[in-house]
Amino acid sequence: MIIIGIDPGSRFCGYGLLEIEGRKIIAAGCDVINVLKGKDLLERLELLYNAINDILKECEPDIAVVESIFYHKQIRSVFTLGQARGVILLALAQKNIPLVEYSPREVKKAVVGNGNASKQQVRYMVNKILNLHNKPVQDDAYDALGLALCHYNRIRFA
Amino acid sequence: MIIIGIDPGSRFCGYGLLEIEGRKIIAAGCDVINVLKGKDLLERLELLYNAINDILKECEPDIAVVESIFYHKQIRSVFTLGQARGVILLALAQKNIPLVEYSPREVKKAVVGNGNASKQQVRYMVNKILNLHNKPVQDDAYDALGLALCHYNRIRFA
Repeated sequence: MIIIGIDPGSRFCGYGLLEIEGRKIIAAGCDVINVLKGKDLLERLELLYNAINDILKECEPDIAVVESIFYHKQIRSVFTLGQARGVILLALAQKNIPLVEYSPREVKKAVVGNGNASKQQVRYMVNKILNLHNKPVQDDAYDALGLALCHYNRIRFA
Repeated sequence: MIIIGIDPGSRFCGYGLLEIEGRKIIAAGCDVINVLKGKDLLERLELLYNAINDILKECEPDIAVVESIFYHKQIRSVFTLGQARGVILLALAQKNIPLVEYSPREVKKAVVGNGNASKQQVRYMVNKILNLHNKPVQDDAYDALGLALCHYNRIRFA
């Protein structure tokens, strides 16, 4: 079973893949998509959609995990993230990949054991659980792996 | 020249087409897409994307007008509208149709002459300016025609 975690941000969209074989979990890749390579909003959304589509085609995940509604002080950020999330969910729908959603709090609780954990703690635990050697550089890739791990925890104990 | 106005809502997405021939403007069709026909979020976004794609393919607009960032008290509405807007902008990007954005205030100012006009006043003026016989039933279709009219005003006086 392959789980993909996707974490859309306004500049980078992180993704992380987990492969589950029995009780073994393997981090099967993670990276970020640099959305700012597109010169305007339309180009950025198309770039994001194409990149996600390529990843889904190559990795054929069984399920996708995306952060649930994002509460942010700045309404502009909520709107921007909503647009990015729209094209990601469209790519999932077109490939019939089911979606599950968790809040940042649920992810932190699942990975660190504390819903108020810091980004550094999430990073540390993701590295530890997945035994990462090629450590991803950007937080968004960690957040994506965290999302996938959160779902793995949920199904393991279900 | 064909201008399409698109007004994404959480339940209905309105669209309206204007055909400009010299100094004549003709309302070339308007309707709403019932997004709620999809059973969940993924289906709704795919349905919206497919419907918009079909309209763009059939009507070949030269330019699309969409409401600019939507300020709403409820952050959930902003997020939902952001997602819908994401798939609409993706459809435009894939067909290289340029996008212009106006705020609800700018539309009301252009159509009624008053940035604080009511929905009823916008409806009344859209009917009057476009000489509509088959009057659209839903506000979202009027709002979409209002967006297209706003852009027509802008280019006419530019």
